[in-house]
Amino acid sequence: MNKELLWLNEAIKEAEISWAQGGIPIGSVLVTDKGEIVSRGHNQRVQTGDPTAHAEVVCFRNAGRRRDWAGLILVSTLSPCIMCTGTTLLFGIKRVIIGENKNFLGAEALMCSNSVQVDVLNDQRCISLMQRMKEERPDLWAEDIGK
Amino acid sequence: MNKELLWLNEAIKEAEISWAQGGIPIGSVLVTDKGEIVSRGHNQRVQTGDPTAHAEVVCFRNAGRRRDWAGLILVSTLSPCIMCTGTTLLFGIKRVIIGENKNFLGAEALMCSNSVQVDVLNDQRCISLMQRMKEERPDLWAEDIGK
Repeated sequence: MNKELLWLNEAIKEAEISWAQGGIPIGSVLVTDKGEIVSRGHNQRVQTGDPTAHAEVVCFRNAGRRRDWAGLILVSTLSPCIMCTGTTLLFGIKRVIIGENKNFLGAEALMCSNSVQVDVLNDQRCISLMQRMKEERPDLWAEDIGK
Repeated sequence: MNKELLWLNEAIKEAEISWAQGGIPIGSVLVTDKGEIVSRGHNQRVQTGDPTAHAEVVCFRNAGRRRDWAGLILVSTLSPCIMCTGTTLLFGIKRVIIGENKNFLGAEALMCSNSVQVDVLNDQRCISLMQRMKEERPDLWAEDIGK
C-alpha cells in the first residue's frame, strides 16, 4: 500500500470516530514527509458546539504552537472548505491529500493558485462516508458548510 | 459617535484584555446590524497554545451553532488573515469592519472579490496596539502569521 493511502486510512479512522459519536464524518491528520503523524482531528461541531471545529481546524489546533508547518502534509477525507483552505495557507502547508471531492468541492483552486500540491484520491470509503451523512442528516451537513 | 466606532471600541477592549494577559493584542466582535453584540473574542494563541485561536476564529467559535450568520457584521481591530477571511466567507458574513491594515494587510482582496463589504477605519488606537506588539514581541507576531 502506498504511503498516501496509509495516511488517508488514519484520517478515515478519525472520520469514523466522529460518525460513531453522532458527529460529522470528516477526519484529518497532519504528517511529516517521513510519515510521522504529528496531529489528528475530526469534525467536532456536534460534539462541542463549536462551528469552527472542522476536522482540519481541529487538526491544526491539536498540532499546537510549532514552526515546522512548511514540512507538514495535510491529509483530509474531504475537500477542505474555504475556512480550512485559509488555515492551510496561513500555515504555509505545501501539500494536501484529499480523500474525495465528489460530495463537496472546497477551495482547491485557491490552494493550487497558491502553489499548494493538491492530490485528490477519490477513495470510495470517503465517498461512502459522506453520502451516508448527506442522506441521513442533510440539515446538519448544510449547517456545516454555512448554508 | 457613529455605531461603527462604538463596535470597534468593543473589539479594542478585547485586544487590550489579551495584551494584559501577555497575549497578542487583537480583538473582534460579531454584531447584528442593530448593534447587538452576539459574540466577542481575542487572540488566545499564547493563553491556550492553540495556533488557530486568532481573535476572529475565537469570536466565531464563541458565537456557537447558529443560522443567522448572513445578518452579522464582523468587527476586528486588525485586517483579517487568510484563515480568518476563509472563516468569514464560510459563514457568509456580508460586512467586515477593520480597525487598521497598516501593520498587516490580510486577505481583504479575497473578501471584496466575494462581495463582502470591507470598511477599513485605520483607527490610531488599533495601529498603536499593533506597533507596540511588533516592537516588543516581534517573534511572537511572526509566529502568529505563520512565519
